[in-house]
Amino acid sequence: MTIADRWLLPDGIDEVLPPAAMQIEQLRRKLLDLYHCWGYDLVIPPHLEYLESLQAGAGHDLDLQTFKIIDQLTGRLLGLRADTTPSVARMDAHTLKREGPVRLCYAGSVFHTKPCSLAASRSPIQVGAELYGHSGIASDVEVISLMLETLNSLTIQNVYLDMGHVGIFRGLVAQAQLSEERQQELFDILQRKDATELADFVANYVDDVDVANMLLALPELSGDFDTLKQARTVLSNANENVHNAIRTLEQVGLAVRQFSSSLTIYFDLCELRGYNYHTGILFAAYVPGQGQAVAQGGRYDGIGKVFGRSRPATGFSSDLKVLLDLIAPSEPADNAIWAPIDVPFEAVQALRAQGERVVRELPDQVQQPKELGCNRKLQLINESWQIAPF
Amino acid sequence: MTIADRWLLPDGIDEVLPPAAMQIEQLRRKLLDLYHCWGYDLVIPPHLEYLESLQAGAGHDLDLQTFKIIDQLTGRLLGLRADTTPSVARMDAHTLKREGPVRLCYAGSVFHTKPCSLAASRSPIQVGAELYGHSGIASDVEVISLMLETLNSLTIQNVYLDMGHVGIFRGLVAQAQLSEERQQELFDILQRKDATELADFVANYVDDVDVANMLLALPELSGDFDTLKQARTVLSNANENVHNAIRTLEQVGLAVRQFSSSLTIYFDLCELRGYNYHTGILFAAYVPGQGQAVAQGGRYDGIGKVFGRSRPATGFSSDLKVLLDLIAPSEPADNAIWAPIDVPFEAVQALRAQGERVVRELPDQVQQPKELGCNRKLQLINESWQIAPF
Repeated sequence: MTIADRWLLPDGIDEVLPPAAMQIEQLRRKLLDLYHCWGYDLVIPPHLEYLESLQAGAGHDLDLQTFKIIDQLTGRLLGLRADTTPSVARMDAHTLKREGPVRLCYAGSVFHTKPCSLAASRSPIQVGAELYGHSGIASDVEVISLMLETLNSLTIQNVYLDMGHVGIFRGLVAQAQLSEERQQELFDILQRKDATELADFVANYVDDVDVANMLLALPELSGDFDTLKQARTVLSNANENVHNAIRTLEQVGLAVRQFSSSLTIYFDLCELRGYNYHTGILFAAYVPGQGQAVAQGGRYDGIGKVFGRSRPATGFSSDLKVLLDLIAPSEPADNAIWAPIDVPFEAVQALRAQGERVVRELPDQVQQPKELGCNRKLQLINESWQIAPF
Repeated sequence: MTIADRWLLPDGIDEVLPPAAMQIEQLRRKLLDLYHCWGYDLVIPPHLEYLESLQAGAGHDLDLQTFKIIDQLTGRLLGLRADTTPSVARMDAHTLKREGPVRLCYAGSVFHTKPCSLAASRSPIQVGAELYGHSGIASDVEVISLMLETLNSLTIQNVYLDMGHVGIFRGLVAQAQLSEERQQELFDILQRKDATELADFVANYVDDVDVANMLLALPELSGDFDTLKQARTVLSNANENVHNAIRTLEQVGLAVRQFSSSLTIYFDLCELRGYNYHTGILFAAYVPGQGQAVAQGGRYDGIGKVFGRSRPATGFSSDLKVLLDLIAPSEPADNAIWAPIDVPFEAVQALRAQGERVVRELPDQVQQPKELGCNRKLQLINESWQIAPF
């Protein structure tokens, strides 16, 4: 390994330098304080868990994304968390064991073996909130509102909300009586929104003409509230699950719009991100110029089941580094005080106790105080050390 | 894997629940703000790095402690950080590349394959500060003072400071002309302070009578400032490096005592924790009833050398979870406001904007508001929603 290599970081693994690191810290504090005010309790889930725990909570969606490590104490496989939700679900289901709604939030790094998209980080600093133990739309509305408030509190503007529901796809594949394997194939085709492939698939594997037509129409069902009206007509022969899903989307959409009238809401009935993981509504927030969602979430009822206590759950997450890029904070103004070497420690400490940032000169230091962010200095005036401009 | 196993965490890997998680968050904020006031800039080092980077910075001390992972993108070995210092040193030496003193601080989890002691966590939340680019005692005094101020700011009392210097052992083994292997053997014996083994070792491998006597006396050289006086006599035939080390200990000790007159300072000339890593003074803070140090650090000049820029460095670290245990904060008082289901969202938001914690009732919720930490509720009085006691 050459010297040049040694200080390279693995692709997608980032370090954060001053002043961005403190800006991320401020974001973290602001958001955790916001979640606290909404009644969400902070938890610190472990970074490492037995692999089975991580997989059990989340299905196998995250398996390929998860770094595996052997625990030298036990010889068992550990996973480095690729998502925070499985751990938080385990904490809700088994450690806390509370009845009724439980609101939890978190902030911390997660790690991906492969980036989620070409430009994505492999080490997002995930921040999020989750509401366990309530299955009605009120909890979905609450977490979506909190996700929007997260962006709003950072003055991120022109947000639009994308909503889907896995019940629509699930209902239709049940009606089409597709095998697990074919379901996955259809899922992949719908994600690509490839009309030719979809037509081929439906022609080959879906016998019922009504169901075939509904599946063919699915990629077209996206847009504003009219989409839902259109869906009711186009999917009129679909089963009850599909219609429940459409009703849920409408109710949640109307409730969210009530809280945030300037918000653009976009329904996408083909949207299936996290399909294996989620059980109900899916949502994501986008801003212009960003191809990837800046925050996302959904309902994932039953995630605690493998831990012995099935609980309804809904929540969202974002990445502090992505959020920082969106708000592009100005460089912090220099506001430290320079303490020349002969200033007594007590005088320095008194200023620090008032919240001032005071940088002490070290012997033989050649730097200029201004390079260290100082805009004032301590100076002996009438035998007392006083703050003076440079 | 049984259900009971699934929610077990690996030994020494902890999760932190409410309310302790928020207490740790408050500690983190308090300490990072303190370090900011002292002129230390926050950095967020990566959790994963190429193994060579982590080892290059720290010698092989940490090798056994480091979880190894294969990077699926490159096939190269990554290490999950077992200590934060190597990464911060790399950032100072290569990423920041500033001349003169650079002050950096950090807070984040580190991971150990094996616990450092029987009861120790394998996932401490390390918080620390480091001062690069200055080699005089003034920088050692500054970081020791900041370590003591860390404990003081948390009202942790009866702290005593243990100080040693690797130059004493290094100087004596050089005079004894011991091979690397014998040095290591002697090092292990001195750590155990085993007088019989030490006598055997010296009789077998140290020919020079003066040097032999000095080595035999080393385990006795511990205590207050008188220890240094005694050391000057007992080690009078030692080389210049040994005497420089004693002088440094004295100067640093006197300077630190000046800032904190109530502090107990304890010199231990046999203390060699982190010997392969450190190059100068070593220090650790203890409190009664805790066998392990609650904060520790030392000088490690030249750590950036493998990254192409050798820099003097001194710093300390602690573990937020250990600090939390020491201060045993009282349970937070219930101070949330309960918002029954018919309170308009705007009224709830107005209170949250004032910093109040407001928990909204969800449909069909059976919990008592008091179980959710509410000590007040919103109530319709004269057609306006007002805060009322239960």
